[in-house]
Amino acid sequence: MDAAAKALPAGGLVRLEAAQGEFLGQATFNPHTLIAARVLTVEAAAAIDVEFFAARLSRALALRERLYPGGFYRLVHAEADGLPGLIIDRFGDTLTIQLNTAGMERLRAPLLEALDRLMAPATIVLRNDTPARGLEGLPPAVETLRGAPATPLPIDENGLRYFADLGGGQKTGWYYDQRENRALVAGLAAGARVLDAYCYAGGFGLAAAVRGATAVTLLDRSEPALALAAQAATANGVGDRCRFERAEVFEALEAMDAAGTRFDIVVADPPAFVKSRKDLGAGVRGYRKLARLAARLVTPGGFLFIASCSHHVEPAMFAEQVAHGLDDTGRAARILRSVGAGCDHPVHPHLPESAYLKGQLLQLD
Amino acid sequence: MDAAAKALPAGGLVRLEAAQGEFLGQATFNPHTLIAARVLTVEAAAAIDVEFFAARLSRALALRERLYPGGFYRLVHAEADGLPGLIIDRFGDTLTIQLNTAGMERLRAPLLEALDRLMAPATIVLRNDTPARGLEGLPPAVETLRGAPATPLPIDENGLRYFADLGGGQKTGWYYDQRENRALVAGLAAGARVLDAYCYAGGFGLAAAVRGATAVTLLDRSEPALALAAQAATANGVGDRCRFERAEVFEALEAMDAAGTRFDIVVADPPAFVKSRKDLGAGVRGYRKLARLAARLVTPGGFLFIASCSHHVEPAMFAEQVAHGLDDTGRAARILRSVGAGCDHPVHPHLPESAYLKGQLLQLD
Repeated sequence: MDAAAKALPAGGLVRLEAAQGEFLGQATFNPHTLIAARVLTVEAAAAIDVEFFAARLSRALALRERLYPGGFYRLVHAEADGLPGLIIDRFGDTLTIQLNTAGMERLRAPLLEALDRLMAPATIVLRNDTPARGLEGLPPAVETLRGAPATPLPIDENGLRYFADLGGGQKTGWYYDQRENRALVAGLAAGARVLDAYCYAGGFGLAAAVRGATAVTLLDRSEPALALAAQAATANGVGDRCRFERAEVFEALEAMDAAGTRFDIVVADPPAFVKSRKDLGAGVRGYRKLARLAARLVTPGGFLFIASCSHHVEPAMFAEQVAHGLDDTGRAARILRSVGAGCDHPVHPHLPESAYLKGQLLQLD
Repeated sequence: MDAAAKALPAGGLVRLEAAQGEFLGQATFNPHTLIAARVLTVEAAAAIDVEFFAARLSRALALRERLYPGGFYRLVHAEADGLPGLIIDRFGDTLTIQLNTAGMERLRAPLLEALDRLMAPATIVLRNDTPARGLEGLPPAVETLRGAPATPLPIDENGLRYFADLGGGQKTGWYYDQRENRALVAGLAAGARVLDAYCYAGGFGLAAAVRGATAVTLLDRSEPALALAAQAATANGVGDRCRFERAEVFEALEAMDAAGTRFDIVVADPPAFVKSRKDLGAGVRGYRKLARLAARLVTPGGFLFIASCSHHVEPAMFAEQVAHGLDDTGRAARILRSVGAGCDHPVHPHLPESAYLKGQLLQLD
């Protein structure tokens, strides 16, 4: 990067050209970041304005409504939707927005106007408290731009009613990325005893209960998350089959093993163990430990679903740690399905590494 | 391998020990192959007899009936089911069996007796015409051991009725591995014009028609395969919306593009382009070409499902070729889901490379 480029304002629009002068695209540019340029369009004449955002958002909306009609999904997933730096989750007439680059931050006004034109959201919450913003030199901020999110906020997914808390909840309040995986696990749940470790607001465990699990233990360290899960259990008519336990998950799994507690299905869907490259060693070993502790609680012939949402842990690395963790237990196992995020979290064909979610559904002997 | 090991009979049972004499497992052994030993059990005292097979088969059967009740699935998928070298597909009371190693060939008698005890199949067809057998020094053979397979043989999958021909059909007559992927694509098909390229007996195309596609073109080079697909179209009441075209797929795709024919969904699920490592270069480029030709036929906002069942093409390599093929068209695209084989094709946790099926569902702008 030359001095002139370094002097450009963070997040400004630039035209990218090849060394021979060939036009490559219009991009936002931040000289202070590793990924300096993020292409918005390959059309030289396109204005990056309300119309531009309206077209991209309208396309993203049409795809989601075709996939998951009813207004509950990740509406925009950054590059793959042609809007690098932008994440929008939709909960009916409430939107949560992350502006993760200086470039998208500067384009906030046309973005919001386009959203208004397209869907006139009643409530908009900016969840700008992401690590990505730090890398871009942007301050963290959580801010309600308009309206007031319902407390708790109802969410419809897979025919269930869940609840989130946009004020205090994690990330954007809900993890739509596991939608299909919740349905996959729930499809095995008839007659099963289920443990949902790191249950957060009950995504996997309640889906299993509704699909016929006889007893579900929902385990999390967060009291507010468990309260949301309990409220959702009642709303779905399965409160009598659910038990909520507040505990550190590793400790709780060890205690259950010592007590001889067993489950037909164990779900272990932790928050990212590896938040940065320097955590990689210890974090990766965390998945091995989790696989070991969780596998010990699975009945013979039962199922384990284990996941990692760590961007820095590649699929092969995750699979290796899970295999080692299973070896540690001496249990034979088979991977029934290796899965990723749902279709509302698309991946750019040239950015396969952005497919951060990895999950395995296993059967154990 | 020492001289004593080299002198062992192909496919005999051996005890594996570490250099220090520690027992590792009982295995079948073939001194003439790259993968010489295939572990059957880590139990030193276990007899490899009818009881052994009955226990493994019974476990495999219980899993499949839990996943896909009704008797239509891959019953045994080799290592992951604890039976290396053995593939069994089930079509109701008909079984097709592949004995892919000298070891499993020698264990044929207890295997067949255990199958009888477990499910008394009316018809058993040996489909021993696989390349794997050549590597093991085994002759190819297709043989009906018992009964006579119905012609055509009805198959129930995803609520549809299909037909296969075990005598003349490909592989074991049906590709259960795409079951979930057929359902995934069919879920997008309401109101769509669909092209099913390499349709074989109609798996993807007819599922799309039943789920509401308005017009489906089923394309294959094989007249018998198209006849099976046509019979299934009628059986599912969608014959009026299906058109069958016999042609070489690459040529047909080019002709359709030249004629301006477009589809809302294109499925391209070819036979393996890479059958051995020496084919890798040309075969891999085949996926790029297929992605390019297929993508050109997709309407803006439409979908492409493209797959590779080549064992030698790793997922990253496949994804790269698809991305290049899309680039060749100048179309922007997003990967909605990267998928593999269904749950009745499990993978051993230490053999991730045995996950041969790779597919991508993409949306194109």
